[in-house]
Amino acid sequence: MVSSGVWAESIPLAKAHDLKEVPTVASLPTAASAPESMKSALQKINYLGSAPCSYKQTPMAAHFELHIEQGPHLVSAGQRVGVVTAVQAYRWYRLNITGRDSHTGTTAFEHRADALYAFSRMMVRAREVAASHGCLASVGIVEAKPGSVNTVPGLVSCTLDVRGPENEAVAVVDAQLRTDFDAIAAEEGKGIGKPCRVEWILDLDSPAVNFHPDCIGCVQQSGEAVVADAGRDSGKSLVRTIMSGAGHDSVFTSKRVPTSMIFIPCKDGLSHHPEEFSSADNCATGASVILQAVVRYDRNRFT
Amino acid sequence: MVSSGVWAESIPLAKAHDLKEVPTVASLPTAASAPESMKSALQKINYLGSAPCSYKQTPMAAHFELHIEQGPHLVSAGQRVGVVTAVQAYRWYRLNITGRDSHTGTTAFEHRADALYAFSRMMVRAREVAASHGCLASVGIVEAKPGSVNTVPGLVSCTLDVRGPENEAVAVVDAQLRTDFDAIAAEEGKGIGKPCRVEWILDLDSPAVNFHPDCIGCVQQSGEAVVADAGRDSGKSLVRTIMSGAGHDSVFTSKRVPTSMIFIPCKDGLSHHPEEFSSADNCATGASVILQAVVRYDRNRFT
Repeated sequence: MVSSGVWAESIPLAKAHDLKEVPTVASLPTAASAPESMKSALQKINYLGSAPCSYKQTPMAAHFELHIEQGPHLVSAGQRVGVVTAVQAYRWYRLNITGRDSHTGTTAFEHRADALYAFSRMMVRAREVAASHGCLASVGIVEAKPGSVNTVPGLVSCTLDVRGPENEAVAVVDAQLRTDFDAIAAEEGKGIGKPCRVEWILDLDSPAVNFHPDCIGCVQQSGEAVVADAGRDSGKSLVRTIMSGAGHDSVFTSKRVPTSMIFIPCKDGLSHHPEEFSSADNCATGASVILQAVVRYDRNRFT
Repeated sequence: MVSSGVWAESIPLAKAHDLKEVPTVASLPTAASAPESMKSALQKINYLGSAPCSYKQTPMAAHFELHIEQGPHLVSAGQRVGVVTAVQAYRWYRLNITGRDSHTGTTAFEHRADALYAFSRMMVRAREVAASHGCLASVGIVEAKPGSVNTVPGLVSCTLDVRGPENEAVAVVDAQLRTDFDAIAAEEGKGIGKPCRVEWILDLDSPAVNFHPDCIGCVQQSGEAVVADAGRDSGKSLVRTIMSGAGHDSVFTSKRVPTSMIFIPCKDGLSHHPEEFSSADNCATGASVILQAVVRYDRNRFT
């Protein structure tokens, strides 16, 4: 999504080029000694290119995007095509929880400012709060320092991903978690007068997006036509409108040009996993729908 | 403690040499591309040596060890010398919690097998269980994979350090945590019929150690003498017996020869932290006590 962000001028080109790979234990021992930048990685594979990445200099009339659903609705209902009308709101944060390193064998619980224990309580609380507002909250990356079996960690850094169908719900969860995390931090370490502290850095704030009705209409009509062409009687019931839980390039393009998306079913609704799978038949359906949607939209532009 | 473990023939030399540094995010970006072995690290600093590391070929008559307390008792009570009579029991484990990677934005909580969420619940539970049995439980190292902001982690590996004054208490906490962690794992992912699993690997089981009465006596007498020599009237009250919460080389040597330890006060009881500190005066007291203890013990051997 970085490239579409640059194209939409939502992300400065220099900032995109300077993004670094996330160093994780998973990337050891093959990782380079220093994290690689986006620009250097693009150069290595000859993808840096020379076309200006901007909606002004390299314009599009509209944007259509084909994707697996990454969720269970189509596959559970036996439906073939999702007409994506919207993308839920999400915010990405980095959190730094600071306590105090101490010895695991000689430091009583009441004398600890255990940043990892505080993190654990925060993560449990995050799910409670998000669920109570119909939202999601997830931690994908966590690092504890100094990283020794007999040292209580004094520093934890983690990501936090909060999502919800409406901007307001995400804002409410954000505010509630800030209050609750502060309270958890204040409790851990109060016995030594050095309570934990938690710092929030907002990396990305992506409000809910509603796609363009003209594009949605083209996808809907194309989906119905493709399913009908495939000789399936109950055409309408095999096509449904759907909201995307994940972010996509279409979030950025929709800021500049009419946009919509097509979803096709995927096995178990699974993505970001080696078992992610869509059948060739479903992929072909998706390709036909996006082709027809583009042609339909283009025809409408000149009539 | 690895070297004393080899000396006591509790740890095979080859196993010690083959130990690898723990790769952590904290060691990036300066870490070598492959984790370094103990043997290679010793060679690099010319510490590999040629003297046989064995209590049989390189014997000692007794072992005394001087250390900062790493706890708050001496400094809180204004005492000068701790006569260490015992070391609490401890066990070190590695835990692997296996769930399923999934997308943070499209996977409802009830469809997740979030290994990091399960970890967090386990860590909160570990403190409750340990505290209720007068024990400690701590996590020093944690890794979550695959390590991406918008992927629910399907694998968490962590250490667990459980300690208590008696072997029995540690065994009870061990058994309770295995039951409770299994229950937490079973709950996370049950909505997709793929509950998390938790695997325990016991890396070290160090039963409680009682030091040798002859050595304890020498440290006690020497502590009282040194404190009295320093012109402090209330000699006895400045010296106390104490149990060590941390493991030390003396745990291993005590298996083969009479052993005891001397503790001196340290600032805030803090160790494994940059602010760890003992005054020059306290260090000098400790050095005098260990010297006198060795001389006393040696004199007793030949009378």
